[in-house]
Amino acid sequence: MMVEGALPRGRPAVGVDPALVRQRVAAAAFELFAARGYDATTVDHIAERSGIARRTFFRYFRSKDDVIFPDHDQLLREVRRVLDAADPAAPVQAVCVAVRLVLDSYMREEQVSVLRYQLCRRVPQLRQREVAAVADYERAFSHYLRGRLPEQPGELPDTLRADVVAAAVVAAHNTVLRDWLRAGGATAAPEALDAALGYVLRTFGSPPAAAPPEPAADDTVVAVFRAPQRFDDVVHRLRSQLTDG
Amino acid sequence: MMVEGALPRGRPAVGVDPALVRQRVAAAAFELFAARGYDATTVDHIAERSGIARRTFFRYFRSKDDVIFPDHDQLLREVRRVLDAADPAAPVQAVCVAVRLVLDSYMREEQVSVLRYQLCRRVPQLRQREVAAVADYERAFSHYLRGRLPEQPGELPDTLRADVVAAAVVAAHNTVLRDWLRAGGATAAPEALDAALGYVLRTFGSPPAAAPPEPAADDTVVAVFRAPQRFDDVVHRLRSQLTDG
Repeated sequence: MMVEGALPRGRPAVGVDPALVRQRVAAAAFELFAARGYDATTVDHIAERSGIARRTFFRYFRSKDDVIFPDHDQLLREVRRVLDAADPAAPVQAVCVAVRLVLDSYMREEQVSVLRYQLCRRVPQLRQREVAAVADYERAFSHYLRGRLPEQPGELPDTLRADVVAAAVVAAHNTVLRDWLRAGGATAAPEALDAALGYVLRTFGSPPAAAPPEPAADDTVVAVFRAPQRFDDVVHRLRSQLTDG
Repeated sequence: MMVEGALPRGRPAVGVDPALVRQRVAAAAFELFAARGYDATTVDHIAERSGIARRTFFRYFRSKDDVIFPDHDQLLREVRRVLDAADPAAPVQAVCVAVRLVLDSYMREEQVSVLRYQLCRRVPQLRQREVAAVADYERAFSHYLRGRLPEQPGELPDTLRADVVAAAVVAAHNTVLRDWLRAGGATAAPEALDAALGYVLRTFGSPPAAAPPEPAADDTVVAVFRAPQRFDDVVHRLRSQLTDG
């Protein structure tokens, strides 16, 4: 038996999780978008379907468009928090950890995510919003990477490599996410993301810079030379590289 | 002033290059956006400023928004044409050649490009369109790369590597373009793009697949090993790698 009288009176917001309300309204909106089309669905329809007043809707969302990605701002804050707390010695790995939050957020709301994906394919305006949301994560990653990637010879601007690595991480994530969405949530997305990020890490990642600059016990040496050199020359150059100092 | 009544009915205006009309209207629209704001500028204002009738405007553009990237569709076709004509043995290089068309198109219309950049920073709706336009190029690159990248060991889906490489090329281009736009067209963008694409090619590029799989005269050998190994062991392993067969 419900004991409603036991709840504090006059405080309607107690126990109401704003994130849950937003998700509930989003789910209602998506059902309507799917059933009657995006253009024909109004804010009044969405409010009615989710059992809230029109003015309550506007406390949670700026517009009908805004319902599409209800968790975006919160997720972006969480991504930045994870980056700020990460080991700065392994910046590419940190970004790979952070991008998992994005996949996780889609997977937590599988039904809404799949419906939204199908909707964004049909409504260019929504697809543009989706692309812009992804660009927000990419920008956060790039900002984090600036000044943190190990130096490279040459005159490449720091921002260039940060942008390229961030784009590669986001592209790897998006490919996995898209496959999962297309399959209606039926692929093993976390494992696929492991493999995809492994590829990015092999391509761009560096060992944690925590190691001192002098050769440490497990330093890896990479020697690059042209094959047709005389073998003795190669040995000589390697010996001087490895045994000097 | 246009004398539309003088033009034959049902036929495009003789001697009028549609691309030039579109550029002229775009330039007029940008002046108005900059002078009185985007929201306060109507299609009628733009038509009047560029000396065409309102209905003529709608023969060239679907909407006010559409004026923002007047060359987008044409440029995308040109990008695809260049890719189709490229040497399939050097797919990453082909994409690097194609992305130069995008930078070139911005540089040809320097004033309009810089104005548009400033406008897109201020109007989220336009920024979303800009991001979506860039996503179109990226998709074209990725589609081209699928099935063309040299095989790699492991079980990575072909689409994954294609998406990651396409994203890296586009990111490298966008960084250079953004620096150029921010500087109001005052950077040496083509040279910066050379350096940026050089980085992407070193990271992802492979020598043209026309080369036979056996070691050729200028093959590069990369040897990776742990530093503390006994030097004799390193020499022994290298000798067997380099002199076998």
